[in-house]
Amino acid sequence: MNTQAFQDFYPDDLSHCYGCGRLNEYGLRIRSRWDGEETVATFMPQPYHTAIPGYVYGGLIASLIDCHATGTAAAAAYRAAGRDMGTEPAFRYVTASLRVDFVRPTPLGVPLEVRGRVDAITGRKVVVSATVSAGGQVCARGEVVAVQMPEQMMPRR
Amino acid sequence: MNTQAFQDFYPDDLSHCYGCGRLNEYGLRIRSRWDGEETVATFMPQPYHTAIPGYVYGGLIASLIDCHATGTAAAAAYRAAGRDMGTEPAFRYVTASLRVDFVRPTPLGVPLEVRGRVDAITGRKVVVSATVSAGGQVCARGEVVAVQMPEQMMPRR
Repeated sequence: MNTQAFQDFYPDDLSHCYGCGRLNEYGLRIRSRWDGEETVATFMPQPYHTAIPGYVYGGLIASLIDCHATGTAAAAAYRAAGRDMGTEPAFRYVTASLRVDFVRPTPLGVPLEVRGRVDAITGRKVVVSATVSAGGQVCARGEVVAVQMPEQMMPRR
Repeated sequence: MNTQAFQDFYPDDLSHCYGCGRLNEYGLRIRSRWDGEETVATFMPQPYHTAIPGYVYGGLIASLIDCHATGTAAAAAYRAAGRDMGTEPAFRYVTASLRVDFVRPTPLGVPLEVRGRVDAITGRKVVVSATVSAGGQVCARGEVVAVQMPEQMMPRR
């Protein structure tokens, strides 16, 4: 498994996302990596990320899937283009749609493993499916349609 | 519009949710109310709830829809049963599935309006559709399938 995360390669002005920006001091700072053909991120929820006592709230699960999937989309686009991450122009994706099925309650107090798989790359669109597991049990399944960030959303440099 | 929010009626031990628990000091504390046949919540994102500079990150949108929809489901169940919110036994819902379509980028720095509509109540299940708008423009559409909380998830009293 690579030691550098996809998010380490995001340009500084695209690294402020609450979910995955390494420069957002209040955020979740999700870090995603390749693990063979899959991508993986590990996240330890804080005690206040609760829904009802003992379980993780759904919005966090959705956030983990969302940011891990857009990171996976970017990494997959570089891989498909035969380019190293971090080379310019940067591939950066935003979410067009997000679906999460909560399979079982997600226990609080253990690390969560988020796994992504690239289902399709077509033009500017990447479809990623994901799971969130706790203690080896899948607690949620997600699907994200990610699209390459529109030019007008790019920060002015 | 009622002045009390649905979440004000949740029992204390079910009021710790990061998204909507009035007792979670770190959380978003979403407050949802009836507005005729629809439900509404207003939320002001913090500057750190950013995705790329100037826009709200998707995980927050998903969280707002999720918690507003489960609150709407509970309120709809009370209304369908002809009971006042806050009467026992409490109706409380968890999310079985969540879908969010991001229609346009959600600007940061303005209040967001979350609106919910009850599409169906069948047995223990309530289907809620929702929109998130900024400045009168719909930025995201969501659908949540909420199910009555299983007995084994209820906190021990």
